[in-house]
Amino acid sequence: MKELSQEILTAVIRPRPQNAHKGTFGRSVLIGGNEQYGGAIMMSAEACVKAGCGLTSVITAEKNHPPLHARLPEAMVLDWRLTQDFTCLLHTADVILIGPGLGLEPHSQQILEQVLLQQKSSQWLVIDGSAITLFAQKHYSLNYPKQVVFTPHQMEWQRLSGLEIVDQTVENNQICQKSLGATIVLKSHRTEIYASHSQYRNPLGTPAMATGGMGDSLAGIITGFLAQFANKEAALCAAVYLHSLIGEELGKEHYVVLPTEISKNLPQYMKQFEQSNNKAEDK
Amino acid sequence: MKELSQEILTAVIRPRPQNAHKGTFGRSVLIGGNEQYGGAIMMSAEACVKAGCGLTSVITAEKNHPPLHARLPEAMVLDWRLTQDFTCLLHTADVILIGPGLGLEPHSQQILEQVLLQQKSSQWLVIDGSAITLFAQKHYSLNYPKQVVFTPHQMEWQRLSGLEIVDQTVENNQICQKSLGATIVLKSHRTEIYASHSQYRNPLGTPAMATGGMGDSLAGIITGFLAQFANKEAALCAAVYLHSLIGEELGKEHYVVLPTEISKNLPQYMKQFEQSNNKAEDK
Amino acid sequence: MKELSQEILTAVIRPRPQNAHKGTFGRSVLIGGNEQYGGAIMMSAEACVKAGCGLTSVITAEKNHPPLHARLPEAMVLDWRLTQDFTCLLHTADVILIGPGLGLEPHSQQILEQVLLQQKSSQWLVIDGSAITLFAQKHYSLNYPKQVVFTPHQMEWQRLSGLEIVDQTVENNQICQKSLGATIVLKSHRTEIYASHSQYRNPLGTPAMATGGMGDSLAGIITGFLAQFANKEAALCAAVYLHSLIGEELGKEHYVVLPTEISKNLPQYMKQFEQSNNKAEDK
Amino acid sequence: MKELSQEILTAVIRPRPQNAHKGTFGRSVLIGGNEQYGGAIMMSAEACVKAGCGLTSVITAEKNHPPLHARLPEAMVLDWRLTQDFTCLLHTADVILIGPGLGLEPHSQQILEQVLLQQKSSQWLVIDGSAITLFAQKHYSLNYPKQVVFTPHQMEWQRLSGLEIVDQTVENNQICQKSLGATIVLKSHRTEIYASHSQYRNPLGTPAMATGGMGDSLAGIITGFLAQFANKEAALCAAVYLHSLIGEELGKEHYVVLPTEISKNLPQYMKQFEQSNNKAEDK
Repeated sequence: MKELSQEILTAVIRPRPQNAHKGTFGRSVLIGGNEQYGGAIMMSAEACVKAGCGLTSVITAEKNHPPLHARLPEAMVLDWRLTQDFTCLLHTADVILIGPGLGLEPHSQQILEQVLLQQKSSQWLVIDGSAITLFAQKHYSLNYPKQVVFTPHQMEWQRLSGLEIVDQTVENNQICQKSLGATIVLKSHRTEIYASHSQYRNPLGTPAMATGGMGDSLAGIITGFLAQFANKEAALCAAVYLHSLIGEELGKEHYVVLPTEISKNLPQYMKQFEQSNNKAEDK
Repeated sequence: MKELSQEILTAVIRPRPQNAHKGTFGRSVLIGGNEQYGGAIMMSAEACVKAGCGLTSVITAEKNHPPLHARLPEAMVLDWRLTQDFTCLLHTADVILIGPGLGLEPHSQQILEQVLLQQKSSQWLVIDGSAITLFAQKHYSLNYPKQVVFTPHQMEWQRLSGLEIVDQTVENNQICQKSLGATIVLKSHRTEIYASHSQYRNPLGTPAMATGGMGDSLAGIITGFLAQFANKEAALCAAVYLHSLIGEELGKEHYVVLPTEISKNLPQYMKQFEQSNNKAEDK
Repeated sequence: MKELSQEILTAVIRPRPQNAHKGTFGRSVLIGGNEQYGGAIMMSAEACVKAGCGLTSVITAEKNHPPLHARLPEAMVLDWRLTQDFTCLLHTADVILIGPGLGLEPHSQQILEQVLLQQKSSQWLVIDGSAITLFAQKHYSLNYPKQVVFTPHQMEWQRLSGLEIVDQTVENNQICQKSLGATIVLKSHRTEIYASHSQYRNPLGTPAMATGGMGDSLAGIITGFLAQFANKEAALCAAVYLHSLIGEELGKEHYVVLPTEISKNLPQYMKQFEQSNNKAEDK
Repeated sequence: MKELSQEILTAVIRPRPQNAHKGTFGRSVLIGGNEQYGGAIMMSAEACVKAGCGLTSVITAEKNHPPLHARLPEAMVLDWRLTQDFTCLLHTADVILIGPGLGLEPHSQQILEQVLLQQKSSQWLVIDGSAITLFAQKHYSLNYPKQVVFTPHQMEWQRLSGLEIVDQTVENNQICQKSLGATIVLKSHRTEIYASHSQYRNPLGTPAMATGGMGDSLAGIITGFLAQFANKEAALCAAVYLHSLIGEELGKEHYVVLPTEISKNLPQYMKQFEQSNNKAEDK
């Protein structure tokens, strides 16, 4: 199990090509936010946009559209009841995130099924929050498991893998990862990543980040990084590391760090690592 | 009557355990905000989240959901007309706050009755604003009065205790506190706390804080502190003291201090007292 | 015609009494904001709250409630179609502002009529924007003209006084002021105030302030100052002067100064003048 | 083809006349924002107001009004289904912007047709985003092509001009510009402007600006500059240059620059160029 370090950031966050346009940095579609948990998908969307994704669309309950736009006009929105438009939009995505605030209602389930069925070989799929619980209940299959990332906390991982929390050892987690075929981001105060051939441990994180919504912002950063960076495994590792790094830094001055504060700081932190990268190249 | 000082902050605001998760810092359910006074419950929710509560849900009129989410995606929301979901959500709470902007309508009354009936032995209940007035009118009884906090201003205390403002002496207030069995936070320019065995006086406060909503933010901080800190009486005292301390500090630069400005500053002020705490331990 | 200076600020913005509560600083009711011009009453409300008014309620079209609360949870709201609640709320006001974004529709007219009929001897009334145009059209009478302030720009003053802009000389304006009996704040790049026995000229103002909504924020400051300060004529002069002073200061760094930026700076600017006031007392 | 430089900013951004009022700086009407792409017209409106336009109205789907007002109370709003009010409002405009987030639905088309039919000889018209695609599909004619600006990116220019992206040479673009008669702002990482007698190249721009909504904020700045500055061709060039200049400056500290961040910085950047202008005059 490799320990992540700042090197993953300088490796992933490269200077952008000069003649880039927004399409260069990927199209993400984020799905979640029912009547009760709308804030979750808003936090994911903010993280995704501020992590540098080129185009971000959010499929959510209609009541969530005004507050999302009040915070983030940069995102596009679609009512999650509009099944047909929904299908067209999914088609255009480079990365799909499903789960933050999705809920466990029948409609949430139908949407998850549609997304799983529709995943294309060119698309990455991030499954988070209640979508993990729904997935675990129904034992769905995946079209392209190697392009799927699950982001469970320990209880969700128990549901998905069948491993009780006390049994969630590196060895057992690796076995379950192999059986699923997808990459697992197992969130705890020291998050672990289980990919097909490698495992990574995040040495960072602070209890100041132990507050509702922190996983939603992480899912958004992961989505934004997968959309824009070519090496997907490295992008995933960089997202996990950067989320905790910003949390730790802000935690030096704040007793509690809100997820939206982490997102707000993404563009500046990313720039720092692009620059130290450049400096390294100058040698 | 003991005078509060900064010691209460360093005693209460301890370094968080390293392996904490959001559940470690408690689940709060906040109830209030009718069609006219929705801002009140929004201000309580902001204070509760920024005071470090692990998970914050708000039960309020549906029209208040979009502006609440536009300000604070970190909170979850529930329409206060959905009685059944409401009951389930209450069940999960460590602390319940009822009252900010609740109003005096029949529906407000029904909600208060339900909350009072449902309080469990493991739950703390904070009764604020119009919920105090409703409580005083109907002479309800409390399931666990030792786990109830009332936060009246002087006029509300008159309604609740029957004491005219001129008769609200320490001695009389103590007698009424004993008869109610609950803890009383009697708000004025020098707030007093009447607990079962001790009374406290807050030496801080500034007329710059004399503006609408200031009590709503205090109720939110109290709720967040009760949710996350083990010693409830000390947590309550720390909440009252910190609210005024931030108000006084901001009041040095502002002729009027808005409640939302106090909440915004909570994470940084709390950190300062955690740190001086650490320093004390280093000796 | 007296020229206003910083002295008016130090005279009006006094240290607040230590044992004050929110009621000490007055209750304002702001009426305006139809389906199209809702932003106007939001800008007035922000100015009123941040100018230090104790309690601010806004009567406006219901569609304006969510964005108003998203910006300013400190204010209370009432749907302007709820005529009965409306009447009760007006009854509690120390100062009523009618006009920002009110529109010229029949419903706007009915509301204005009701407000004019209901004004009590203890209340101040500020008539702004479209309410001036409606007033001019219908030649209403005033219950207590000495407690009424009109805040026309030059074109609205033409409608109200019958004076063409070229004929709006100090002498003619004084004659029309006497005939109305109310105080006139005649807005231009050098605003003039016509009170019963005195006239004032504001030497400040910058073309950076020539942008939509600037009059709405002025009306809000006037309302907040009338609500909280005893000398009404001085309060009015201080509001006009301070609005331009902040505009000029911000205008040194901004090509255009937005009304909401002026409001945001009120608490800090007001504090500066309270302090220089204190210093004067120390001598 | 002339290369733009800071001189265009000091030439255009002149000190405002002292006795100006909001009408002096123009009336803009912005049309766009359907159910899905509402954020686009919000970003244009923020840019237009903060670029100094005197009065800004937005015609958009009603669901976009609350978030727009939550961000920007300075703008007025009109439901884009209210065809009659719409016509009246268009009549008052100095500049009309149509397109950001307009969509390709039949209703979007009808609105575009109405705007094209209604353009008066005194009005400037900016056609952006989906309005360009609709225009290209239907081969509409223009009332006053010399007062029309199209702001296509390369793909939209292909639709409008018929030129494949590889064939979009300066020479070919000039020919197509002449055939249309309107001014073309051809957006890419080095934006070009094709006017009747001159062509300009913008040397600025950074891949940090390659994110959704960047064109919407540019369209808003163009609209605000056309509304307030007399030399329209120079105003257009200044808008393009300033948008990229701010983006480049922010891009030195941010890996990605959000469109709303550019708008937020407009008043301060514009002031800098007004001042260096003054200094030049002092010599």
